[in-house]
Amino acid sequence: MTVKLINYTPEPEKTVAAAAYTCHLRKCAEIDKMSGEKIRKIIRATRNSGHHSVMEHASFTFAVDEISRACTHQLVRHRMASFSQQSQRYVNLSEPDYVLPETIEKNSKTKKFFESAMKDLWDVYNKLTENNIPDEDARYVLPNAAKTSIVITMNARELYHFFSLRCCLKAQWEIRDMANKMLSLVKRVAPVLFEDAGPRCKQLGYCPESESCGLMPTKKDVLKIK
Amino acid sequence: MTVKLINYTPEPEKTVAAAAYTCHLRKCAEIDKMSGEKIRKIIRATRNSGHHSVMEHASFTFAVDEISRACTHQLVRHRMASFSQQSQRYVNLSEPDYVLPETIEKNSKTKKFFESAMKDLWDVYNKLTENNIPDEDARYVLPNAAKTSIVITMNARELYHFFSLRCCLKAQWEIRDMANKMLSLVKRVAPVLFEDAGPRCKQLGYCPESESCGLMPTKKDVLKIK
Amino acid sequence: MTVKLINYTPEPEKTVAAAAYTCHLRKCAEIDKMSGEKIRKIIRATRNSGHHSVMEHASFTFAVDEISRACTHQLVRHRMASFSQQSQRYVNLSEPDYVLPETIEKNSKTKKFFESAMKDLWDVYNKLTENNIPDEDARYVLPNAAKTSIVITMNARELYHFFSLRCCLKAQWEIRDMANKMLSLVKRVAPVLFEDAGPRCKQLGYCPESESCGLMPTKKDVLKIK
Amino acid sequence: MTVKLINYTPEPEKTVAAAAYTCHLRKCAEIDKMSGEKIRKIIRATRNSGHHSVMEHASFTFAVDEISRACTHQLVRHRMASFSQQSQRYVNLSEPDYVLPETIEKNSKTKKFFESAMKDLWDVYNKLTENNIPDEDARYVLPNAAKTSIVITMNARELYHFFSLRCCLKAQWEIRDMANKMLSLVKRVAPVLFEDAGPRCKQLGYCPESESCGLMPTKKDVLKIK
Repeated sequence: MTVKLINYTPEPEKTVAAAAYTCHLRKCAEIDKMSGEKIRKIIRATRNSGHHSVMEHASFTFAVDEISRACTHQLVRHRMASFSQQSQRYVNLSEPDYVLPETIEKNSKTKKFFESAMKDLWDVYNKLTENNIPDEDARYVLPNAAKTSIVITMNARELYHFFSLRCCLKAQWEIRDMANKMLSLVKRVAPVLFEDAGPRCKQLGYCPESESCGLMPTKKDVLKIK
Repeated sequence: MTVKLINYTPEPEKTVAAAAYTCHLRKCAEIDKMSGEKIRKIIRATRNSGHHSVMEHASFTFAVDEISRACTHQLVRHRMASFSQQSQRYVNLSEPDYVLPETIEKNSKTKKFFESAMKDLWDVYNKLTENNIPDEDARYVLPNAAKTSIVITMNARELYHFFSLRCCLKAQWEIRDMANKMLSLVKRVAPVLFEDAGPRCKQLGYCPESESCGLMPTKKDVLKIK
Repeated sequence: MTVKLINYTPEPEKTVAAAAYTCHLRKCAEIDKMSGEKIRKIIRATRNSGHHSVMEHASFTFAVDEISRACTHQLVRHRMASFSQQSQRYVNLSEPDYVLPETIEKNSKTKKFFESAMKDLWDVYNKLTENNIPDEDARYVLPNAAKTSIVITMNARELYHFFSLRCCLKAQWEIRDMANKMLSLVKRVAPVLFEDAGPRCKQLGYCPESESCGLMPTKKDVLKIK
Repeated sequence: MTVKLINYTPEPEKTVAAAAYTCHLRKCAEIDKMSGEKIRKIIRATRNSGHHSVMEHASFTFAVDEISRACTHQLVRHRMASFSQQSQRYVNLSEPDYVLPETIEKNSKTKKFFESAMKDLWDVYNKLTENNIPDEDARYVLPNAAKTSIVITMNARELYHFFSLRCCLKAQWEIRDMANKMLSLVKRVAPVLFEDAGPRCKQLGYCPESESCGLMPTKKDVLKIK
């Protein structure tokens, strides 16, 4: 999977800070008159007090290639986001092109089963289209593993929420891989805005699941100790 | 595919009419004091004037079985809706269970290709899980055709929008089939609310696509005549 | 302020539990085959594991009268909700009708200032309309305190979120009063679904603000002790 | 009222075109390899075929000053948008600062009524705060006309929808003024993307209201002629 940050609101931190500051002023804050120190202070104060809506003023657009449709089916359940995805209705996909899960790859026997199944599937896909089955119906034979491409836009607030769910070790491995790549990319261009982003336990101070991965104690443990 | 209307806001039309009426009163409209004639009049006037937001006060919940994951991937792109779907991560799906597109079924050759591929796929799925591959990774081999189940809740406004896109003859056949079944179900319980629902051309008075299916003339044709 | 629950998804808890259960089954759960014990178990397990989306399948509709426009301006910032509000553009509001804040009421001096201002304002409103100023412009003179009526529909997930913010003692008093009334109403019809609803500290186990009202220790205190 | 475009997705048209193009390719479109001609062609084809979701990848942020709270109450009903508004709970507003509707201004008698009322109102506001009434309660006396400031972010799809409703001559004058100013600003930076934006009749080819302002014939007239 490759993830690229192809566009984003310029000066995202300044933009968020100016919006936050406006709530406390008589006029809209002037975006160009905000110093780095002030921006950091405002962003941190706003985040700590839970006023996350100001983070919506900065958006980030990613181009993701070589992701499975198993993963995008899960991804597009996030509704506070914009997606433009390769269509299997309009694109003919004659060459095998799929994601091979690591658990399957590392066992030579299961790897062989899987790869041979992929080859057979695409053979059937091609036989169907050669027999005049339209692409949109031939694709019914294609696997969840089939690679696809998708352009994603989310604002910083939704990214926080997305990372909180999908960077967690309990998240499915492929979407977690994508989330971690996205997080690393946005941290480069908005380090203060995303300094607290990551799995939910990072913001909560405890793991909200019944069993922790070990990174943080569970809610039960933290509150019991108290 | 089976589609059941399993629940909905009681007296959806009365509820929508009371909400619409409230905008023009000094107090909230009393839902029980609205006659059938008044309800019809208010709903039609509101719809004609484009104030669709009042339709959001009535929601409808459907249980859909035997739908393909090809179709649900498209379905869940509708973001003004609530979905709860069978998880291929948590449910072991050892038996072949899939949607066979009609174009493939009606040609005995393509049908054979397809059915044989399905059998082989599920054999591989079962071999993978027998070799200790977790369900969530074994499912990568499963096809778009695999059947799934999903519970859907949409409000009447979003349903209108959904029908306008998905009852169109240009929509993909499986989602169109589902949309038509949903429309038929809601019309039974809210005939006035949905009397104008259907493909977009029904509301617009013309087909917005470049080529019409024949049901309505295109926008170009209608406006040229003018 | 009066708050009435005028409609809601019938059997909201059964509906939510059936949707949640569907994620783990081969077919959609049959809503009528779910026992009370099973419903409670599923709802609690789902909530504890953070899968809140299933709560979206149950919606609740409220009619609120005698609420100030100061309050509704804040209320309608909640975007995952449907509102139908009395229009000051279409309704002539010739009689003074306003909310008197308690801090102003309990001091006879400030009460007198306020009430006299209200009387004067409405006099001007009426003079403006008598001079052929349209209602939609005359209303510019009306105060934030002016009473209005609004119909609100939210699903159970959004209600949880709404209560978490607005039942907090730091919330503005009028919207907190409304939130508490709404919470009390939904608890009567869906006691299990809303058993954990209330200010955010109830779900978190600590107060997320920098200073606590005393109901719960702050995050800092809880995590320091740990 | 002043409206400034303070930030936006760089190269909004290229971004939208690249997202649209991705749906028809095997990999995500490379944003930098798209020529001006291709961008125009893709944007127009996408818009004409009704695939508006690709327009969500470009966002625009505005700073609006000297707008009335009457207007922002209506504005924030748009839910596919992000708002950060001056808070009357946290900002003390001791000086009269209000919007004077033109219908009231052009009649010296109504103007006098109005201005004198504003002066009196703010006197009461200041008397209340001097008597230790908190700002958040003193503001109940402030009028709908009170000026406020707000930062708004909308994506291009929502802006289209916003303009379609609010640039219409039937829209309330203050929000129409704002919408027209916003439209003029985004047209400068994304002329192709917004070339078709404006009141709904512009996209529909007819006026959807029962009576037209004269700009376009009504739906009834257009379809009757046919």
